[in-house]
Amino acid sequence: MTLRAVKASAPGSLMLMGEHAVLRGQPAIVCAINKRMTIALTPRADRTVRLHSALGEHETTLDDLAPNESFRFVLGAIRACRADFQQGFELDIRSGMSHQMGLGSSAAVTVATLAALAGAQDKEPAPGYLLEAGTRIIRKVQGGTGSGADVAASTYGGALRFHAASLEVVKLPKAPQLTVLYSGSKTPTPEVIAIVEENRKQQPELFDRLEALIGDAVQRAFAAAARADWLALGELMNINQGLMDALGVNNAALAALVYALREDPHIHGSKISGSGLGDCVVGLGKAMRRDWGVPSLAVKVDPLGARVEALP
Amino acid sequence: MTLRAVKASAPGSLMLMGEHAVLRGQPAIVCAINKRMTIALTPRADRTVRLHSALGEHETTLDDLAPNESFRFVLGAIRACRADFQQGFELDIRSGMSHQMGLGSSAAVTVATLAALAGAQDKEPAPGYLLEAGTRIIRKVQGGTGSGADVAASTYGGALRFHAASLEVVKLPKAPQLTVLYSGSKTPTPEVIAIVEENRKQQPELFDRLEALIGDAVQRAFAAAARADWLALGELMNINQGLMDALGVNNAALAALVYALREDPHIHGSKISGSGLGDCVVGLGKAMRRDWGVPSLAVKVDPLGARVEALP
Repeated sequence: MTLRAVKASAPGSLMLMGEHAVLRGQPAIVCAINKRMTIALTPRADRTVRLHSALGEHETTLDDLAPNESFRFVLGAIRACRADFQQGFELDIRSGMSHQMGLGSSAAVTVATLAALAGAQDKEPAPGYLLEAGTRIIRKVQGGTGSGADVAASTYGGALRFHAASLEVVKLPKAPQLTVLYSGSKTPTPEVIAIVEENRKQQPELFDRLEALIGDAVQRAFAAAARADWLALGELMNINQGLMDALGVNNAALAALVYALREDPHIHGSKISGSGLGDCVVGLGKAMRRDWGVPSLAVKVDPLGARVEALP
Repeated sequence: MTLRAVKASAPGSLMLMGEHAVLRGQPAIVCAINKRMTIALTPRADRTVRLHSALGEHETTLDDLAPNESFRFVLGAIRACRADFQQGFELDIRSGMSHQMGLGSSAAVTVATLAALAGAQDKEPAPGYLLEAGTRIIRKVQGGTGSGADVAASTYGGALRFHAASLEVVKLPKAPQLTVLYSGSKTPTPEVIAIVEENRKQQPELFDRLEALIGDAVQRAFAAAARADWLALGELMNINQGLMDALGVNNAALAALVYALREDPHIHGSKISGSGLGDCVVGLGKAMRRDWGVPSLAVKVDPLGARVEALP
């Protein structure tokens, strides 16, 4: 079979609720956002694989697939399906989001790569496949950690409830508007997870109960969001924020932004988005205030998940 | 019987853990602190009652007991036992603590007044009486609210676990060192309690679970403190802080101080002390840092509860 040229894309994502607890059987709510990762795949006659992005260049072969830190998720996705390929290809990767802000760029690039590789073989990539394979690849690259919630959002689009064990996805009929502030620093997610595990060792039963409470708040939040009750959703986000603080993943910079957002009359609730100890804070609603003294982003939920189309 | 001149005193107090949940059946940990309220009682031949303090002067009679905002707790205590008195008296009230910092000055002045009134009649005030009568008076003056935890600390001294419904008090064998920072503003406790009640109405089952979790953390903290495991106590204070945030009683100023304290190598944990939305933040340990940009207090737990002695 001859490869065809395709363009694939997948949205970035934002965790709305349920971080950490999602790794222990609880549901999470995650949103695809209108910042997409786009990948153009051009077939080659030889077995060379060339990757281009704003982060750099990498050239290897289907046989070697030499590692490269900047392209570890893309290379992980290629490795997962290289048995299907006789021809090499070039991938031109363009990101609509900062990879520093923790907006699910790893999941988006993994899903977009899988979609491009499927599309190049003239297959329509099934969402179930993208979610399952994408989650497996990300966990492998990250040394075992990763809920897959961001992969689910990049795959399906929209705002959705996600269970990690079953990879069950339920979409919300209506998506909220969000305001995102970047705290200016980042602790890598696997490090934050290790810190929470360390805290959990001191008080395992309390942590079980904390995580069950987060799960309970997420279920109630999903029901509130399903009836577009944004006031109730905001209140539940605020409760979830306190529970994340209890897990030990809040800090002074994040707390300051969380409370600054709650001062805004258009914001119904606010919390850390993602694993914590850095990255972003999300407010429910489109804030009135424009200048926050930190990078900010008015984010719309992107209803479109992963897409692939043939290039002429 | 002729009254005798006495001097009574009672320590102020600091809530260490369990605020709000203590009003719903959960235990709290409260500490008497080495800032005392002292009251000298001088008998009079007539039925006049004169009160002096740094807050002002008030003159009334045993028959009138005219209200006065500055002396409402003292007048509440006198009203509770005025049937025992044929003679009036003067009370000279001296406070070793700021009444703005929420260090249990209302409870301390109530307990000290009850102790002085008992001592003037040559009775040794029983702790059970001071706790029961003090709690009743404070709740009456405050329109129903008040756990009595501060009354228990003012009565018994030391660091203790307290249940509001049973007024059960269990002392800790060893008391921790504490650092207290004043946030610069105050919301009256009854107002904060009303805000929590309003939040609770939106999510009653979640609030039940939050408060049960606070109670669980307090029980574990008491066990940790009983074996002088300050690291574990600090960790549990941090968890309790997150749960208070989830109740909705944290704010930007308090959060900033909570995180500033945790940066100090001598502080094992930190949280809001008292009902929240203002007042103080308490750190477990004697902080290394001296200047916090806000009023600070190195506090020792006072092992002595309410005292009364005859004056010559």
